[in-house]
Amino acid sequence: MNAPVKFDDLEVGYDVPAAVGMDEADIQTPCLVLDLDALERNIKKMGDYAKAHGMRHRVHGKMHKSVDVAKLQEKLGGAVGVCCQKVSEAEVFARGGIKDVLVSNQVRDPAKIDRLARLPKLGARTIVCVDDIDNVAELSEAAQKHGTTLEVFIEMDVGAGRCGVIGADKVVEIAKAIDAAPGLKFSGIQAYQGAMQHIDSYEGRKEKLDIAIAMVQEAVEALKAEGLEAELVSGGGTGSYYFESNSGVYNELQCGSYAFMDADYGRILDQDGNRIDQGEWENAFFLLTQVMSHAKADKAICDAGLKAQSVDSGLPFVYGRDDVEYIKCSDEHGVISDPQGNLKVGDKLKLVPGHCDPTANVHDWYIGVRNGKVEAVWPVSARGKAY
Amino acid sequence: MNAPVKFDDLEVGYDVPAAVGMDEADIQTPCLVLDLDALERNIKKMGDYAKAHGMRHRVHGKMHKSVDVAKLQEKLGGAVGVCCQKVSEAEVFARGGIKDVLVSNQVRDPAKIDRLARLPKLGARTIVCVDDIDNVAELSEAAQKHGTTLEVFIEMDVGAGRCGVIGADKVVEIAKAIDAAPGLKFSGIQAYQGAMQHIDSYEGRKEKLDIAIAMVQEAVEALKAEGLEAELVSGGGTGSYYFESNSGVYNELQCGSYAFMDADYGRILDQDGNRIDQGEWENAFFLLTQVMSHAKADKAICDAGLKAQSVDSGLPFVYGRDDVEYIKCSDEHGVISDPQGNLKVGDKLKLVPGHCDPTANVHDWYIGVRNGKVEAVWPVSARGKAY
Repeated sequence: MNAPVKFDDLEVGYDVPAAVGMDEADIQTPCLVLDLDALERNIKKMGDYAKAHGMRHRVHGKMHKSVDVAKLQEKLGGAVGVCCQKVSEAEVFARGGIKDVLVSNQVRDPAKIDRLARLPKLGARTIVCVDDIDNVAELSEAAQKHGTTLEVFIEMDVGAGRCGVIGADKVVEIAKAIDAAPGLKFSGIQAYQGAMQHIDSYEGRKEKLDIAIAMVQEAVEALKAEGLEAELVSGGGTGSYYFESNSGVYNELQCGSYAFMDADYGRILDQDGNRIDQGEWENAFFLLTQVMSHAKADKAICDAGLKAQSVDSGLPFVYGRDDVEYIKCSDEHGVISDPQGNLKVGDKLKLVPGHCDPTANVHDWYIGVRNGKVEAVWPVSARGKAY
Repeated sequence: MNAPVKFDDLEVGYDVPAAVGMDEADIQTPCLVLDLDALERNIKKMGDYAKAHGMRHRVHGKMHKSVDVAKLQEKLGGAVGVCCQKVSEAEVFARGGIKDVLVSNQVRDPAKIDRLARLPKLGARTIVCVDDIDNVAELSEAAQKHGTTLEVFIEMDVGAGRCGVIGADKVVEIAKAIDAAPGLKFSGIQAYQGAMQHIDSYEGRKEKLDIAIAMVQEAVEALKAEGLEAELVSGGGTGSYYFESNSGVYNELQCGSYAFMDADYGRILDQDGNRIDQGEWENAFFLLTQVMSHAKADKAICDAGLKAQSVDSGLPFVYGRDDVEYIKCSDEHGVISDPQGNLKVGDKLKLVPGHCDPTANVHDWYIGVRNGKVEAVWPVSARGKAY
């Protein structure tokens, strides 16, 4: 084990798991670690792809909830701004200097609508989704009250079975209402097919996206026939962006997980049948953990449990190790099968969490590492912003 | 829907979901709501039980992570202090004025041990668990360095299969080492059988606890034979406290979930075959959510998903409603089956989360309500303190 790290009394560990310049080996666990080289390569790769295909890339900020990562995506990946799911997240991104923010979700509570309508005052183009014509008047009233303009996407349900309208006639009906509403601007269509992103096979995903594209195309044409232009047609995730990019219908992507990768996304297959975390994208996002008990010969107990990750999409895997396996998760502990007794107390392991989004949401900090040193300590700026 | 709540610009909703004195109906969702009447009755009931049975009650602070709730447990339930699982949690409780703090876990990282050894300087009796004789010297060195005394429990694995030693001889061996180590005081045994707490049947749980009690009794007697006294024998949860209380071996309880209740604990059965949330304990802990889309006739979409709760122990149930059911959880959404179309946009529902501990850990605030008004806004003081 390493010697104790020197810090001011009760500071590190209590408030933050690491400081810039520290050795990677001294980071306090459990905490989130970003491999900055891998992160930058992922961001650049997706940015280059979007550019080559003439697509805007509005990165999904709800995945990382970090202003710093969003700005890196703007800088290295040409991102045009972010989307996120909650008004409180949008506030964090707008306050942090992101100039184009989409709440890719419905906003219905009066207090939330009021806050949304104030967002353009922070200098951000503000777009929100609508799937109910009654929402149009609510948004219009708030925008007029604050003297701002809210842009509006109509959310279509293109197969996810959650929010969103079905059918071109519904889209046209709501678009007309938006177009006529003071303080609002009709700006396009939100059509993210979330349910298909995790289908293992490329062909299985393509089948679902073909259906989605046809639905969106019909709506775009119906709008045109009424003299309404969808300036932006937005959607596309890490499991589908190539379909939207080659559709001739979408012009904006909303990818999130590609930047970090996680165990659940990693196991879907590309066109050649390879896992997408074995070539297409790199694991850049890790949950660092430490063995803190090994009282049984074949089991190590580590310090990362349910309070350091979400297991909704399965348990994490241990990165770069075939000899040990994370087999059970309780509140503050993970049980690691160690049949050969290779681990000892104090050993650190990098876990790849099952699902990056809700795992990021339980942490306050990202620790960015490069060449064995801590290079960045970034807050999870919108952590817990669920309102 | 209610009129927008008046607050200073971008304050409520952004930083905190409610303010004291507000109507319950105006609380921003999703957020954690505590029914203060039910909470106080639960706390008082368990306190009375412990007192009547001559048991100390060291409440489990890792469940709620709240200094305010811990102090309520001291005041109304006669709690002697808290246990928690991490040094960073212990720091929060000690700083908050709790005078008797047990880290019911192993502490092995040198930096964490160093922080632990400073805790008595904050005025808290500080106890830690050990399951490896090598840890004794580490703790002793740190306590000497800081001129403090660390009290030590030996953790026994009494069936949970996680941390802890097995067998009275191991306990005696480590107790002797602690007794001989400068800066340390041998104070007793940690023997919490976590794995049995969620077995549905009372008899099934009793069978497991009988085994645990026998193991602990053997260790206590072996210690006595060596002239070593276990001042405290500590353990017992919401699914077992009556067994430990009547064992004649344990003298300290460590219950946590009884105060809040959750869906997973609620469904275990008492001695008469009744669910424990139907008489023994009341639901005091709710995840308040709001319907924000109802684009399909039979499905309402609410604003509480994986970033507002942990689903490791199953989905939440909708409190007091038989007509609707929470059937699917994604990052920021919950899908609620509403076959009769009873819900409308803006409706609020109280969810009982599957598992209270990791659900509390994603929130920054508890909103305490009584008689339709917000009476308390308490921070989740140790939220995210996983180090």
